[in-house]
Amino acid sequence: MAAATALAERARPLASPNPGAGALIVRNGRVIGRGWTMPGGRPHAEAAALDAAGDAATGATLYVTLEPCAHQSTRGPACADLVSKASLARVVIGMRDPDARTAGKGIARLESAGIAVTVLDLDAATLGLSAHACALEHGRPHVTLKLAMSLDGCIATSSGESQWITGEIARAHTHRERARADAILVGGGTLRADNPSLNVRLPGLEARSPRRIALTSGDAPHGWQAIRSPAEIANLKGVRYLMVEGGAQTASAFLAAKLVDRLIIYRAPVLLGGGTPAIKEIGHDTLDAAFADGLVLKSRRQLGSDTLEVYQRG
Amino acid sequence: MAAATALAERARPLASPNPGAGALIVRNGRVIGRGWTMPGGRPHAEAAALDAAGDAATGATLYVTLEPCAHQSTRGPACADLVSKASLARVVIGMRDPDARTAGKGIARLESAGIAVTVLDLDAATLGLSAHACALEHGRPHVTLKLAMSLDGCIATSSGESQWITGEIARAHTHRERARADAILVGGGTLRADNPSLNVRLPGLEARSPRRIALTSGDAPHGWQAIRSPAEIANLKGVRYLMVEGGAQTASAFLAAKLVDRLIIYRAPVLLGGGTPAIKEIGHDTLDAAFADGLVLKSRRQLGSDTLEVYQRG
Repeated sequence: MAAATALAERARPLASPNPGAGALIVRNGRVIGRGWTMPGGRPHAEAAALDAAGDAATGATLYVTLEPCAHQSTRGPACADLVSKASLARVVIGMRDPDARTAGKGIARLESAGIAVTVLDLDAATLGLSAHACALEHGRPHVTLKLAMSLDGCIATSSGESQWITGEIARAHTHRERARADAILVGGGTLRADNPSLNVRLPGLEARSPRRIALTSGDAPHGWQAIRSPAEIANLKGVRYLMVEGGAQTASAFLAAKLVDRLIIYRAPVLLGGGTPAIKEIGHDTLDAAFADGLVLKSRRQLGSDTLEVYQRG
Repeated sequence: MAAATALAERARPLASPNPGAGALIVRNGRVIGRGWTMPGGRPHAEAAALDAAGDAATGATLYVTLEPCAHQSTRGPACADLVSKASLARVVIGMRDPDARTAGKGIARLESAGIAVTVLDLDAATLGLSAHACALEHGRPHVTLKLAMSLDGCIATSSGESQWITGEIARAHTHRERARADAILVGGGTLRADNPSLNVRLPGLEARSPRRIALTSGDAPHGWQAIRSPAEIANLKGVRYLMVEGGAQTASAFLAAKLVDRLIIYRAPVLLGGGTPAIKEIGHDTLDAAFADGLVLKSRRQLGSDTLEVYQRG
C-alpha cells in the first residue's frame, strides 16, 4: 500500500478535480501493473493499472489507495466493474470512499463478483487523499499552513529583517510544496509589502505554479483572486489543496478559524529575540484550548541546517 | 573513545572542582580496566583504570578523554608518570589539557617513556569536558540555558498560563539535567512568582540537588545566592556547570551577554499564539548578528510528544 500511495503522489495536483489515487497489481510476488489518476481525473488509477497488466491480471491482487468507484460516467466505466471483469482474486483497499456515489457500493460490487476484499482503513492523510476527505466532510479545500521561523518562533528580527531566515534547501522545499498545491494564499499585508510571485521555481515544475489568492479587504491585483475571510475558501472552485503562506496575521486568522489541517514548519537554528512572532492571538487563552488542536508530529527532516516538521490534527 | 566519554559522564558533577575524565584500558580487544574521576577529583580516571587492570596493563592501550596530567599533587602522583610506569604500548587521548600545568607536558612525558601517543583533538563538548575548557579559556562556569516552549516560541499563554506546556517526561528530563549541574540560576521575577525549589526529584538522585542562584537586584531568600549581572558568574566559587532556567528576562540577559554555551529546548506540539515569548530583545537586530551566534544542533530526541533539542555554539 505504501507503493500505491507513492504512485498516488504522482496524481497530485494534476488529477484535479478528482481525488488522486494510486494502484498496483501484483501476481506471484511481481508487480504486473501500476497506475495513478491521470491529469483531469481520467483514466482512474485502477483502469491504468489493469491496462498495463492485461490478461495477466487474472487471479492477481490489486492494491488501491481508494475504494474503486461504483459510479459510471460518460468519461468511462465504473472501476468496480472493470476490476470485477478482470477476474482478480483479491483487492486490498486503503480507505473507503466517502463519496456517496461509491461509499461501500464499490466494495459490495467486488464481493458479489467473488473477489476477496480487504479494507485497511488507513487515514486519508497517509494515503494522500486528504483533500478528497476534506471536500466531502467539510465542503472546503484541504489547508496546509507554512511557517518559516527561528527557534524562538519569530519570522523577522526586531528591525524587520526577514530574508532569509531559512536556507536555500528549505526554500527549494517550499517550491516543491507549492507545486503540490492547487492554490496559494497570502494576506493583503504580505501582498503589498513583498508582492510575492509565489510561483514554482524548480526545473521541470514551472508549469505547476498554482493559482494565487489573497486574503484582503482591498482589491486583488491582476492575476490574483481576493477573499475576505478564511471561511470563504469553501467557495473557491477547483481548489482541492490550498497552501497558506502568511504573514502572521493571515496564518493566525486561519488558525483561529480552525481551518488548518496540516502545518509545515521550517525552523532555522537561530534565536531572534524580540522579533515578529510567527503567530498572533488565535484564541488560545488557556493551555487546554491550545492542546485541543491535537497537533501530532507526522514527519521531521533536516534541510541543510534547517529542520522541517509536519504536523497534522490527530 | 565514545566508551571513555560515557565513563566520564559518571564523574559529573561529583568530580568537582576537577574535570571529569574517563579512561579505558584495552588489551587484545578486551577491556581490562576502566575508570572515571572520583568524587572530589581523586583518584583520576587513569589511576582508577590502571588499578583495575593491574599487571595486565603491560603492552595494552589506554583510551582517555583528557591528556594525562603532568603535575604531581599532594593528593597523588602525576598520571603521566603512573601510565609510563605501567609499560603501556599506546595512549589515545581525546583532547590536550588546556591547563598550563599539563598542556602538552603530559604527552611529552609519555613519549619520552617510549609510549606511542595519538591525540584525537575532539572538542571539549564531545568529551564531556566543556566546563574544564570554559574555565581555562574564559574563566567562568559553562552555561546551559534551558527553554521549555511551544512551537511558536511561547512560554505562557496570552492569559499567563504556563504550567505545564511540556509533558511529564520532558520535566523529568529537566531534573536529570539539574542533577548534572553544580548550580541552577533563575531570575528575580521567577523567584518571586514561582518560588521554585529547583531540586532534583528523581529517585536516587535527590542528593544531587545543585546550589541555587538568583539573578536579581533584590535580596536572595535563605538558601539562595544572589548575583547582580550575568557577568558575575565568573565569581561563583566551585561552580563548573551552571544551568539557567529562566524566565524570559534572565534567559535574554545571558544570551545578550553571549554567556550561553549550550541551549536545551523542550518543545511541545502546541501553538499558543500571542503568548509570552521565550526570548526578549537580545541585540539581534539583523539576521547577520543572529546567525553570528553559530548555533549548531548537536542532538535531538522525542520525550513523549515533546521534542528535546540540544544546540551548541559551533
